[in-house]
Amino acid sequence: MARSLGRQAPVSARLNPDVAGGGHEYLATGAAASKFGLARTEAAEAIRRAAASSALQPVGLSFHVGSQLLDPEPVLEAAERAAELWRELATEGITLRDFDAGGGLGLGYSGEAEPDLGPYAAALADTASSLGATLLLEPGRHLVGPAGTFVTKVIRVKQAGGKTLAVCDGGSNDLLRPVLYGAEHPVAVLEAEGRDEEIVDVVGPLCEEGDFLALDRRLPKPRKGDLIAVGLAGAYGRVMSSMYNARPLCAEVVLEQGTWRVSRERGSYADLVRNERD
Amino acid sequence: MARSLGRQAPVSARLNPDVAGGGHEYLATGAAASKFGLARTEAAEAIRRAAASSALQPVGLSFHVGSQLLDPEPVLEAAERAAELWRELATEGITLRDFDAGGGLGLGYSGEAEPDLGPYAAALADTASSLGATLLLEPGRHLVGPAGTFVTKVIRVKQAGGKTLAVCDGGSNDLLRPVLYGAEHPVAVLEAEGRDEEIVDVVGPLCEEGDFLALDRRLPKPRKGDLIAVGLAGAYGRVMSSMYNARPLCAEVVLEQGTWRVSRERGSYADLVRNERD
Repeated sequence: MARSLGRQAPVSARLNPDVAGGGHEYLATGAAASKFGLARTEAAEAIRRAAASSALQPVGLSFHVGSQLLDPEPVLEAAERAAELWRELATEGITLRDFDAGGGLGLGYSGEAEPDLGPYAAALADTASSLGATLLLEPGRHLVGPAGTFVTKVIRVKQAGGKTLAVCDGGSNDLLRPVLYGAEHPVAVLEAEGRDEEIVDVVGPLCEEGDFLALDRRLPKPRKGDLIAVGLAGAYGRVMSSMYNARPLCAEVVLEQGTWRVSRERGSYADLVRNERD
Repeated sequence: MARSLGRQAPVSARLNPDVAGGGHEYLATGAAASKFGLARTEAAEAIRRAAASSALQPVGLSFHVGSQLLDPEPVLEAAERAAELWRELATEGITLRDFDAGGGLGLGYSGEAEPDLGPYAAALADTASSLGATLLLEPGRHLVGPAGTFVTKVIRVKQAGGKTLAVCDGGSNDLLRPVLYGAEHPVAVLEAEGRDEEIVDVVGPLCEEGDFLALDRRLPKPRKGDLIAVGLAGAYGRVMSSMYNARPLCAEVVLEQGTWRVSRERGSYADLVRNERD
């Protein structure tokens, strides 16, 4: 579709391939009534209008069928349909440059098999090559998700209703995905080798019943002071965090070649009222 | 239960009256397996231990059965049970001072009738009076919720899948409740008198399909540039907001006796990377 050269395609100008996304309904972006994208016929018309305009230059096709896809097949189907449109436009003399297959590659939060990148990459590369296009990909979650771990300390262990609750000093204000999407991030109690295991809810300190990091997990019996690591927290983690319950943002640490450094200092109480006026 | 004189009762020391909260499961705090509170027998034991301690002085009972209750009956039931415990302790010579009935009073987000405060207040006042207790209440949402309105601008109107979508410059990063709880806040298109109405999804600008403020509402046909007001946003609004999608926090304005003033300036891009180090 039409976009100015050198600028990021606005999401609303994406081709909507009518392919449903996978997983949680909030993660599907390709449905017909989505705020994202254009229907195929609308996208074709937009490109034709841009090509006919003296002010716009259509430079590519972009599509994004959903988020957190564990099977990349919908992306490949969408690529086929986008390639058809590309060729159709080519027969009209409209030459495009970029073929942007978007993102959507999922992570195995619950231990599911992750997408096989080889066939995915080969199929898209073949398609782009056959079109003479520059292939663009946006697999942010897949790249940075595994790079981040959220570490929180157990401040209280509670037995209630036949369950064990490990109440931590970090909660859904720090990592919203479990609550918002029902995401089941991998969780480990650190340095707890040899302990008996039991079924544990890992919950946060907020004034919300829906403040949890993981529910009904078989874990080593938690103790006050334990550190709990929540994995695959590098994507949609810190960026969705808030200061809810007057909790400053957590510190961030980068591990690099055997050393570590603080990349973001722990937030301060001054942050809670920043920009406020009396 | 036991708490230090003059300090806010920690949530975890609240009496858990085993009364379920109303509404969304994330809003129920009184369930048996909740991270909140103590079971009745545990609470009694905690107070006895505190009373026998030279370091602690039990000063009251606190309970909180849930959030966003449209029928205050569960609070009154819990008050009865707490009063029973209070009297039982009194027969043991343990005299308490504060009777804290917590919060929980809901708002009619979807137009439901709100709790009738007269009978609620009378019942609790009677109970506290019969105990010789100081009555404490925490109806924060009920008090401040109606005081806040979230105003956002329509930046695009899209027809898709037979629906009209009003895409706004404010989204779930500013007001999370619709997405997190399925809350149906009242919504109005400002200065749109006389327009035909249609069914509209009011959605935000974020890269999330689950970024909406209101779905399937009959509203005046929205136009680009319209202001849309989302009501009852004074509680759990700004405090749950985030800078997701690199969006600085919105400005806040106080209306007071016919005038207005900015109480929080619009956030800056510097806020996005505050406390970060190279």
